[in-house]
Amino acid sequence: MTNANPQRFLADLHALRGFGAAGVGKGVSRPAYSDPDIAARRWLAGRMAEIGLDVRFDPMGNLFGLGDAPGLLLGSHSDSQPEGGWLDGALGVVAALEVVRAAREAGRTDLSVVAFQDEEGRFGVTTGSSVWSGNQRLAEADALTAPDGTTLAASRARMADLADDWVPHDRFTGYIEMHIEQGPVLDSGGGKIGVVSHIVGIRDMRATFTGQQNHAGTTPMHLRRDAFRGLAALTERLAERFAGLVTPDTVWTIGQVDLHPNAASIVPGRATFSLQWRDADVGRLDEMERTVRAALAETAESHGLTLETGPMLGLDPVAMDPGLRAALETAAEASVPGQWRTMPSGALHDATNVAEKMPVAMLFVPSIGGISHDFAEDTAEADLATGLEVMARAVAGLNR
Amino acid sequence: MTNANPQRFLADLHALRGFGAAGVGKGVSRPAYSDPDIAARRWLAGRMAEIGLDVRFDPMGNLFGLGDAPGLLLGSHSDSQPEGGWLDGALGVVAALEVVRAAREAGRTDLSVVAFQDEEGRFGVTTGSSVWSGNQRLAEADALTAPDGTTLAASRARMADLADDWVPHDRFTGYIEMHIEQGPVLDSGGGKIGVVSHIVGIRDMRATFTGQQNHAGTTPMHLRRDAFRGLAALTERLAERFAGLVTPDTVWTIGQVDLHPNAASIVPGRATFSLQWRDADVGRLDEMERTVRAALAETAESHGLTLETGPMLGLDPVAMDPGLRAALETAAEASVPGQWRTMPSGALHDATNVAEKMPVAMLFVPSIGGISHDFAEDTAEADLATGLEVMARAVAGLNR
Repeated sequence: MTNANPQRFLADLHALRGFGAAGVGKGVSRPAYSDPDIAARRWLAGRMAEIGLDVRFDPMGNLFGLGDAPGLLLGSHSDSQPEGGWLDGALGVVAALEVVRAAREAGRTDLSVVAFQDEEGRFGVTTGSSVWSGNQRLAEADALTAPDGTTLAASRARMADLADDWVPHDRFTGYIEMHIEQGPVLDSGGGKIGVVSHIVGIRDMRATFTGQQNHAGTTPMHLRRDAFRGLAALTERLAERFAGLVTPDTVWTIGQVDLHPNAASIVPGRATFSLQWRDADVGRLDEMERTVRAALAETAESHGLTLETGPMLGLDPVAMDPGLRAALETAAEASVPGQWRTMPSGALHDATNVAEKMPVAMLFVPSIGGISHDFAEDTAEADLATGLEVMARAVAGLNR
Repeated sequence: MTNANPQRFLADLHALRGFGAAGVGKGVSRPAYSDPDIAARRWLAGRMAEIGLDVRFDPMGNLFGLGDAPGLLLGSHSDSQPEGGWLDGALGVVAALEVVRAAREAGRTDLSVVAFQDEEGRFGVTTGSSVWSGNQRLAEADALTAPDGTTLAASRARMADLADDWVPHDRFTGYIEMHIEQGPVLDSGGGKIGVVSHIVGIRDMRATFTGQQNHAGTTPMHLRRDAFRGLAALTERLAERFAGLVTPDTVWTIGQVDLHPNAASIVPGRATFSLQWRDADVGRLDEMERTVRAALAETAESHGLTLETGPMLGLDPVAMDPGLRAALETAAEASVPGQWRTMPSGALHDATNVAEKMPVAMLFVPSIGGISHDFAEDTAEADLATGLEVMARAVAGLNR
């Protein structure tokens, strides 16, 4: 057992949701660099200072509570979606705070805490950890804009009074991030803990089918070049082609569709749509891309459409560090024997970026109903306490 | 031969396109009750008066040029789509004007001309002829609003200084409407004239599939209730089911699709879409409705979606009057032997409403490339003149 204190942890977690409380259930609205986000970071900085950590904001607004010597970094992010839940990244930050506090009370002082900035992508994709890890240059990031037109540079300036230098990566020997699952796997399967095997890779592209806009009454079916009929056929064709290629963990989504002119009495002349797929294996992601491109071309040909595709965006899969992962598995089996599982993370996390610089690992707790990024997001307090215990046990079993 | 004068007819047709000229090709922008529409109607009224017709605007703004005794009514509509062509309904109005002018010069004075209002549905569906024919009450129509929020009542008030009483239906023994085809059948098949057999019926409904909005990374495929996957499957299913049911003239369209939340990284939780089908046979329209409803229900069931459907809107098919149609066919064969055909109208026209009160018939001239409701809409002047000649011949062969 560890001396991590679930009451203290839960009290901090509930206190944190007071910053940006949405007034709907336990929901919060705490987007990166908003007033509630900055206030929450100041409060977290105070809690870190109280237990003797060396508090440092870097130029991005990432908040570090540094231990006295190189060691493990624990944490996540404290910003939220505009309509977010109380847990999400906040859970990982507050769990890290309690694990480090308990360790320091027991005399161990090498552990550090982090609350990354803009994981939720108000400006980019996991922006704070991306810049800190060197995946993106600060000057590039500064030019990013929020949907309301605000630049990242202008938002960073709101925290300029707090900003210090960059924190060197060699202060840390590894990174452990606890997070809610944000999916239904643990909740529907009765699992208490998920130890992450890898964060899946993602490919994302836009495509446009262009046919011929026409009168829906006077254009015979055999003379139509209906962009939506093409998209429907593509959707079914992809499902068939992927069937022989994917694993049960592979996912793909057509989430955005815009027809032109989008009127009941007009044959759609143009369909613009998103295509996204995720998998743990980079070879499979590439094979899926070949399948997508072939299906797009064949469907355009068979339906008399022209095809345009946008650039291919994406991130490659990231495997968790075997040593850190083994520590989490050992701790999970000790805390909840038989009630944990290994699983991929289908969502992106700061750990993807941090993995550029050090070994990383992640553990999940269940999300009730699989809901996240919603005011209704929640996890049973007993499950939150179990997550704390497993992280504390794992850290206790790891030396510097 | 008749003494209808194609030069005079073409000169009037080109003059009319000066009202609301779009500045793009021959295109016009002359929506119902706009300044250019009202100016065009005043100009048409003047041309009618010049040839001795009794000019009457009714409370809807429909413009009549009445002959001296009960007889045939010839015409169409002079309003246009916001981005419309120069011909569309204007062709039928100006052709009617020349046929009546030439007949009066030859001593025949029973013929009348009409330019209906709001055929293009700024407010409703063929609104002017619908109210005049008694398909819709004026008080109901007055509550209709344009997309910009203007009510029909407010728009009618813009023509209040012109408005007189309703014109009684028994002034007329039948109605003949000339129109551009608005489709590719004549143009692609080399036909000069289409004699309309019937105006097809139309059914139109909205439906919504609701599934579960979810994270596109963390939601396994087998746990998804993806509203867009359902819509794609429905589209393919309908094409299969209709194959054994339809004729080559049947058409169906999914023209409007709105996904929620419509984002690349979110499994679509809701898809709202239009379903529309058209056919000449009311029994087939009904059978297609049963097929649509069954396919909707089965797809919702198989994809874990709930289904809501809006009201079923539509108009039944209208057959053309055998006597008037025979006169058009005889005239077409005399003018362009072997170069005409009978065909259905897949578009709605004012004749659908007028058929409630008297025998109706229609003839089409080709649309270059099948284009209409577009600034690029056009027809060869020789084909326009042929249409004029066929209508004049047919009218000459018909007594009161």
